[in-house]
Amino acid sequence: MARELTVSVDAMGGDAGPGVVVAALARSVLRHPAAKFLLHGDENVLKPLFAKRAKMLERVEIRHAPEQVKMEDKPSLVLRRGRNTSMWRAIEAVKAKEAEVAVSAGNTGALMAMSMFQLGVLEGLSRPAIAALWPTKRGQSVVLDVGANVSSDADQLVDFAVMGEAFARAVLGLERPSVGILNVGSEDMKGHDAVKSAAQALRGATLPIEFHGFVEGDDIALGTVDVVVTDGFSGNIALKTAEGTAKLVVGFLRAALTRSLLGRIGGLFAAGALKALKRKLDPRASNGGIFLGLNGIVVKSHGGTDALGFASALDMAIDMADAGVIQRIVADRAHLAPQALPEAAAS
Amino acid sequence: MARELTVSVDAMGGDAGPGVVVAALARSVLRHPAAKFLLHGDENVLKPLFAKRAKMLERVEIRHAPEQVKMEDKPSLVLRRGRNTSMWRAIEAVKAKEAEVAVSAGNTGALMAMSMFQLGVLEGLSRPAIAALWPTKRGQSVVLDVGANVSSDADQLVDFAVMGEAFARAVLGLERPSVGILNVGSEDMKGHDAVKSAAQALRGATLPIEFHGFVEGDDIALGTVDVVVTDGFSGNIALKTAEGTAKLVVGFLRAALTRSLLGRIGGLFAAGALKALKRKLDPRASNGGIFLGLNGIVVKSHGGTDALGFASALDMAIDMADAGVIQRIVADRAHLAPQALPEAAAS
Repeated sequence: MARELTVSVDAMGGDAGPGVVVAALARSVLRHPAAKFLLHGDENVLKPLFAKRAKMLERVEIRHAPEQVKMEDKPSLVLRRGRNTSMWRAIEAVKAKEAEVAVSAGNTGALMAMSMFQLGVLEGLSRPAIAALWPTKRGQSVVLDVGANVSSDADQLVDFAVMGEAFARAVLGLERPSVGILNVGSEDMKGHDAVKSAAQALRGATLPIEFHGFVEGDDIALGTVDVVVTDGFSGNIALKTAEGTAKLVVGFLRAALTRSLLGRIGGLFAAGALKALKRKLDPRASNGGIFLGLNGIVVKSHGGTDALGFASALDMAIDMADAGVIQRIVADRAHLAPQALPEAAAS
Repeated sequence: MARELTVSVDAMGGDAGPGVVVAALARSVLRHPAAKFLLHGDENVLKPLFAKRAKMLERVEIRHAPEQVKMEDKPSLVLRRGRNTSMWRAIEAVKAKEAEVAVSAGNTGALMAMSMFQLGVLEGLSRPAIAALWPTKRGQSVVLDVGANVSSDADQLVDFAVMGEAFARAVLGLERPSVGILNVGSEDMKGHDAVKSAAQALRGATLPIEFHGFVEGDDIALGTVDVVVTDGFSGNIALKTAEGTAKLVVGFLRAALTRSLLGRIGGLFAAGALKALKRKLDPRASNGGIFLGLNGIVVKSHGGTDALGFASALDMAIDMADAGVIQRIVADRAHLAPQALPEAAAS
């Protein structure tokens, strides 16, 4: 990290509670010596967690928030009555420019609703997207939207391409990331109107985008492109289907290795190798949905994650703030606006 | 198989050519002693393949078709000019009641277009669906639509539920299969209008359907329900994403087992176990997209499959014909029509 920045953290989100968040902060404080943290939550719960970590409080400021958003709370309700929650306060600090980025492991719908309400959507953009980092054969790709929207028109898909590309340059360090639109076939004639119009707009755009065209579901894991653009419905289903499949295959592997004596012996010899595989597939390593398209950066950690996973969400938040992802998106959309968007809108 | 039936086979579809199809038939002839086969294709190519298998010709009738559909042919073109192709003739035999079911490894779009044109869609149904058998933690589930449509409204999703359920009873032998609609969350309020209306209709339907409600992407591999209903866009993306993920994980495993000496030794001991895993994940074992909703059964084998995979598609075709899947769908839709469909249509 090059410069000093402040991360605003919701301590009360997540299934495991604030203990996990504080343990993650302990790692993050070491990893990012120039970062400061605002920790929002119930101070009666939080303060005792720092009893043996008093030195951390030089870099972590506890801000009391008496309430918390529950996993089952409806977004509409928390928007009206959630001003005293740790989640609201975490985002509020970004709005007030006290922090560059907010991180929460809480209720995704509530976090998105509060983020949109407080930070606002970038000018000209109709909806934000949630981006995910996806392990591939070649490394990592960005997939978006994985769940902010239940449907997306051509203009939105074009916006997702711009946002995903800016994110890939910032966080993956790629100079000219390739972008593909997820579809049911790679030929131009395939798919519904939204993907066809979006592809047409991107082909004609004068952007620093390497537009590859359509990709299919198996291209995600192959890493065929650096950025995979899709509507939030298909993207969410693809993400969860991939998670389920990976778990299934590992479960089959475990069963295969314990069924016979030879298998068990082989498993013992290969234990190190299998641990490396487990690490590679560990969802904690790429934990965090990134909210893109807002006047501020918000990272959503998995609700069920542990300290390692939450620390990795904090890493991603700091990388994004450091790389100025929002400024890049704004600049890229400025290039795009006069040329490609009207074409997509007309179709 | 209980009764005598005839399978109509397109010998010329598929990437590997008719040699694979004939090798698959050799297996199928043994497995299904009461089945007969009509084999459509270029007799100049086909006859020599039976030179050493003359006895098979008692059960396999070669029918000359001078042309063949290519993988890149557009469905609209083959509909107009494809009457002399092996694919057209294979379906034509079902239409003419010479065969109960047709199997092809050729161009999916062309096969669907020809099947719809020749066999027609079941009365009252707007569109057919392609169903896939999906390996899960609990065994196998049916997922549909995996690619016949690029979008689906609530009525279509309800039809997919009825068809998938009839298929699961017939082919998986379940008395009362559970059915779920694929969505971005399991709560009733989640998702877009089509999935919400379809769920409402299925909740009110008096069918032999155990309607579970919404399921998410990771529920497919868990086997949470026996039948997963989704639109063809998301379903196709889910299917290919799962295939890609399984390959990726197995690739990671292979790399992990060859990277170190201990890993390699472990891999040797566990070779049998790993082979069992490979068999479990072998896409050939559940090869075949099943076209549901037509006045006839058509099974699409993977284009790139080998004899084992094509034989497995033939197995599935014979099971379906034997179980009277179409008759079941027609009977179930008759139950459904007066009650659930108007509700879905009204929303």
